[in-house]
Amino acid sequence: MKKISIKIVGATGYGGVGITEFLLRHPHAEIGALVALQDVGKRMSEVYPHLAGFCDLPILAPDDPTAQTAFDVVFFATPDGVGMQSAGCELERGAKVIDYSGDFRFDTPEAYADYAMRIGRNPEHTAPNLLDQTVYGLPELHRESIAGRASLVGNPGCFAISCILGLAPAAQHRLVDFSSLICDCKTAISGAGKKPNAQFHYPARYDQMNAYKLAGHQHICEVERELSLLADADLKITFTAQVVPMCRGILSCLYGTLHENRPATEILELYREFYADSPFIRIRDAETPSGTVHVRGTNYCNITVSVDERTRRLRVISHIDNLVKGQAGNALQNMNVMCGFPEDCGLSFPGQYP
Amino acid sequence: MKKISIKIVGATGYGGVGITEFLLRHPHAEIGALVALQDVGKRMSEVYPHLAGFCDLPILAPDDPTAQTAFDVVFFATPDGVGMQSAGCELERGAKVIDYSGDFRFDTPEAYADYAMRIGRNPEHTAPNLLDQTVYGLPELHRESIAGRASLVGNPGCFAISCILGLAPAAQHRLVDFSSLICDCKTAISGAGKKPNAQFHYPARYDQMNAYKLAGHQHICEVERELSLLADADLKITFTAQVVPMCRGILSCLYGTLHENRPATEILELYREFYADSPFIRIRDAETPSGTVHVRGTNYCNITVSVDERTRRLRVISHIDNLVKGQAGNALQNMNVMCGFPEDCGLSFPGQYP
Amino acid sequence: MKKISIKIVGATGYGGVGITEFLLRHPHAEIGALVALQDVGKRMSEVYPHLAGFCDLPILAPDDPTAQTAFDVVFFATPDGVGMQSAGCELERGAKVIDYSGDFRFDTPEAYADYAMRIGRNPEHTAPNLLDQTVYGLPELHRESIAGRASLVGNPGCFAISCILGLAPAAQHRLVDFSSLICDCKTAISGAGKKPNAQFHYPARYDQMNAYKLAGHQHICEVERELSLLADADLKITFTAQVVPMCRGILSCLYGTLHENRPATEILELYREFYADSPFIRIRDAETPSGTVHVRGTNYCNITVSVDERTRRLRVISHIDNLVKGQAGNALQNMNVMCGFPEDCGLSFPGQYP
Amino acid sequence: MKKISIKIVGATGYGGVGITEFLLRHPHAEIGALVALQDVGKRMSEVYPHLAGFCDLPILAPDDPTAQTAFDVVFFATPDGVGMQSAGCELERGAKVIDYSGDFRFDTPEAYADYAMRIGRNPEHTAPNLLDQTVYGLPELHRESIAGRASLVGNPGCFAISCILGLAPAAQHRLVDFSSLICDCKTAISGAGKKPNAQFHYPARYDQMNAYKLAGHQHICEVERELSLLADADLKITFTAQVVPMCRGILSCLYGTLHENRPATEILELYREFYADSPFIRIRDAETPSGTVHVRGTNYCNITVSVDERTRRLRVISHIDNLVKGQAGNALQNMNVMCGFPEDCGLSFPGQYP
Repeated sequence: MKKISIKIVGATGYGGVGITEFLLRHPHAEIGALVALQDVGKRMSEVYPHLAGFCDLPILAPDDPTAQTAFDVVFFATPDGVGMQSAGCELERGAKVIDYSGDFRFDTPEAYADYAMRIGRNPEHTAPNLLDQTVYGLPELHRESIAGRASLVGNPGCFAISCILGLAPAAQHRLVDFSSLICDCKTAISGAGKKPNAQFHYPARYDQMNAYKLAGHQHICEVERELSLLADADLKITFTAQVVPMCRGILSCLYGTLHENRPATEILELYREFYADSPFIRIRDAETPSGTVHVRGTNYCNITVSVDERTRRLRVISHIDNLVKGQAGNALQNMNVMCGFPEDCGLSFPGQYP
Repeated sequence: MKKISIKIVGATGYGGVGITEFLLRHPHAEIGALVALQDVGKRMSEVYPHLAGFCDLPILAPDDPTAQTAFDVVFFATPDGVGMQSAGCELERGAKVIDYSGDFRFDTPEAYADYAMRIGRNPEHTAPNLLDQTVYGLPELHRESIAGRASLVGNPGCFAISCILGLAPAAQHRLVDFSSLICDCKTAISGAGKKPNAQFHYPARYDQMNAYKLAGHQHICEVERELSLLADADLKITFTAQVVPMCRGILSCLYGTLHENRPATEILELYREFYADSPFIRIRDAETPSGTVHVRGTNYCNITVSVDERTRRLRVISHIDNLVKGQAGNALQNMNVMCGFPEDCGLSFPGQYP
Repeated sequence: MKKISIKIVGATGYGGVGITEFLLRHPHAEIGALVALQDVGKRMSEVYPHLAGFCDLPILAPDDPTAQTAFDVVFFATPDGVGMQSAGCELERGAKVIDYSGDFRFDTPEAYADYAMRIGRNPEHTAPNLLDQTVYGLPELHRESIAGRASLVGNPGCFAISCILGLAPAAQHRLVDFSSLICDCKTAISGAGKKPNAQFHYPARYDQMNAYKLAGHQHICEVERELSLLADADLKITFTAQVVPMCRGILSCLYGTLHENRPATEILELYREFYADSPFIRIRDAETPSGTVHVRGTNYCNITVSVDERTRRLRVISHIDNLVKGQAGNALQNMNVMCGFPEDCGLSFPGQYP
Repeated sequence: MKKISIKIVGATGYGGVGITEFLLRHPHAEIGALVALQDVGKRMSEVYPHLAGFCDLPILAPDDPTAQTAFDVVFFATPDGVGMQSAGCELERGAKVIDYSGDFRFDTPEAYADYAMRIGRNPEHTAPNLLDQTVYGLPELHRESIAGRASLVGNPGCFAISCILGLAPAAQHRLVDFSSLICDCKTAISGAGKKPNAQFHYPARYDQMNAYKLAGHQHICEVERELSLLADADLKITFTAQVVPMCRGILSCLYGTLHENRPATEILELYREFYADSPFIRIRDAETPSGTVHVRGTNYCNITVSVDERTRRLRVISHIDNLVKGQAGNALQNMNVMCGFPEDCGLSFPGQYP
């Protein structure tokens, strides 16, 4: 089978090197062009020396002629605002487009504006005509839409993935009081990207944890929209983002008050059914030891379901690797679904321990 | 002024070395005896070489004659079950006793039994006659009782301190629906003590976070009792303990649904009033950057108060150093209050950064 | 092609889980039995939950009948003393045997005794008759012996691999004064294995580095023997083992005084020639940024060659992942060479960054 | 006794906050002005929230009138090039000046030029007339000069301190072949300062160690000059700088070939004599466990002396906290000596463990 050709825009960030690593072992795809604004002219293996001998392609400027040919799939591993400028052009050339940012996670200009204002961006989308084509790239919920018609997918936010996957069955089955939902989320530092800043300078962070963006994190929009769709109700959540001194991992504790006390086993069963066709979801009971290290380096989401009967509260703990299921791995999963490959193609590996 | 003499039982654990370090710079106290089961006969500075030249006292066996004389204050920096065996004898000799474990945090055999069963211990207290003398050693709430009559103080659990301090004003002012309380708590690893185990072996932990004891952490009892007393109501909480790869620090996110939306400034004011006389509490608004590193190595508790108006939810974030305000520092604060020294004597220092 | 069947003894240690992970993606091998003393009866994926769905085989006791059948290859991922008891039996059944410990790194009882005494073991080898069959498992130096006749291979020590690979060309070309050799080696903690101890408890290690075994590390024997063979001289080295707060990585700085000043480029050329046929060695000049992260999770050894002309000193810096090229990866490389597979089969991957 | 008044220039860097913390507990000094280029107008406790209530002074611009009055002591906790511009003015106002950079570590323009070129700076010193007044600020070697006449002290480089202290007795007693000296030095990251960069971004560093500046580190000049003076010979060293994922600590392994084999006990004795009057030096034998954590947060330098008799090599291991004995603590020690206070005044504390 002829391999599909891939362009990665934003190749030198963590999201770019991540998708590069995965594509190198994908049997049906090959990287055709690596594009970035920085390090243009260097080889990828100069920027990331661990790739020496594996990916020695040059980094191209966005307007490099080689980068301006037609590719089967284009990943925008770029910050907000980049994808919306170029996605239209790529789509016209026949590419399928997967964007990592918030540019294509919303299907109306209004929903986008709500998101954009939370991160201090211009609320006006510059490619509003594309919004009705975009699909929210969470295969566990939108597998059919992604497979069926999507040429343009907005890869979800990393926190959003952990929360939505953890609460989706509870929302759909309307197990909990929808005014009681709390998402207490902790992330490792790589989620903030490759660019150094004072908060994540090693000496400032090695023994420090903190909450941030208490006024409202931008991923809230996605979580509320997706859960509301499942619940057929207008949900709101309280969301707390926290960062701890780790490289990879998100652990989200998700709380909701049950309408009635139910045994955890019953809820576990609903969760297992909900995800029966999802190869990357593993449901665990409260007695099974769990932790982010069990999904480190992989595309899995491990979900622990517990019930605190004393307070009639459902507590779900969702574990992902923020750079894999929270980003590049999920993006590749979207590509697989869009292109008709097995959903776990190139992603079926267990990570390395310790 | 003659210095008071101190005995530390369990001197070689983290709680013992912590109180040793603090006492070395206390102007009114001096260490008279260090007692432990392990390393007997070694000098403290052999066990902890950073203390060379500062504390070269020998480690004594519990029954060493030198350790069996009268001391003004005895710290039991020991696991559950040790203090209850020896506290009576120390009290008879005229000592004031401060115990780090759960042995004297409860004032009835029934309350102790509830706690003891959560940690798999014999529910029967072996010194029940002492329980009506004990005072719960949280000076911010029980300063007068500790100062007035206490010879026996149960130093609280580290998680409990962070939760109670964070929620006490809200409980007393009955700001929140008491069925909505959630304590989502993250701790550094030193809280688990000095003894190595598989979970906290460096390679197993350096990039791993996890929740544990989902079935019910033993500190819940203390939190519910103290908050119930303040609220004059029978409170229950949902509590989640988590551990992250750090040495020092607890960050607790505390949630409760407000009866009515109130501006955060109003609630901040109530918090500031509540702690007006407490030198180690710093109240912060949601816009002020905060983190555990700001209290690292110190006896402070920094409390951030925020309101999520969209969901009418109070969110309080409590930051302590688990080994200081969460353990040895709080114990010394108790000693100061019991002995009539200034509450912050020997504890008024800012930590070292980074 | 029929896959060869593998037994792993000591499957639940870091060396066991490492070889398991690599074999899971080896195209010509499959794991037939996992053997350990602990966790017998559990599934491998219970001990290592990241392997759920990838390796759910049960852990067998050594004497389990399933483990006592014939396998094509047996890995002893076990401490000193285990392999020498069972290797003979496995060889009689027709297996090729690769042992991780010092049991088969030496080909005379005397050489073994010298090693054994350094680690406080009985100097008497219990299977001395096997010693003349064993081959030192460093394919870069002994590829032909391993391929040609070896059924029994002693996988080298992790420090030894880093030092020998870094100094072998210099020894063979007799570039340096053989009385001037110094190996200053730093290792991450996983090299000490999975068993918790006080030194490697997270709070004791997170901000601590130290040298150890100053009286003489056991890996010295291997380094001196191999370099002496190459140099045709009786070499001695000064060796310092150090440990730093990391999970994976060895960085060895290797020093020798040059007989005469030579340009680094000339020495680089000699190094490149020496390793021309070795797929896992990458030679770097002093201007190329380097670090252990560039080999993390991989079987590569990156070697930086520099010359300090002011002092006429050769300085070689050798970087490996102690668990891969320093252990399980090198063991698999040996298997490939012994079995006639391509040397990098199942090992040709670049690691994951960051 | 009236307290002396202090100005700290560069107050918001790690070197500035360090000296601030130490001065806060110094009985004879008080901070009069904090000066920096960034964060002007903020309070020190806004920049470093752990200092809230301890140091709420404002950060002043260098030309702020308050900062331009006379102080008893001025610390330039600033990068190269700042001190040489302003020291003259401060000296004229009657201040004693202690500079952290290389500006005043050398007493001739030629020696400075050699240093400056190694770090890519203009080799011309802009205040050459001050160079014959400056004293090299290592009290263990130059106590009398510092006490006697010095108004201007150049605080040494952190690596240089660890190497010079470790080799000084060997140099003075001419124990080793001076052409055989090797300094293999590992530092924690805080040595690189507060400014974020790509190398020390948490995800890039958490599991990475590397050597750097192989072409020649600038601290070499200081080490060679000081050891040459002691040895009365023209010494050269091979020096390797390495960085490991830690916050605080330098561990330097120092090697030299002994002229003749001597028992380690004899050399230990020479070291103990050499440092008999130095309160911050602790000499240790090779059997005593040692590590950077034993000096963490303190002004101590722990020196382990060992002899490898097989190779007739002296190996000295020097441990400091790079931010204390390697920087701010040593600077304060200089102030004490210059001002006639006890050398350990405000510095006699053991650190906090773990």
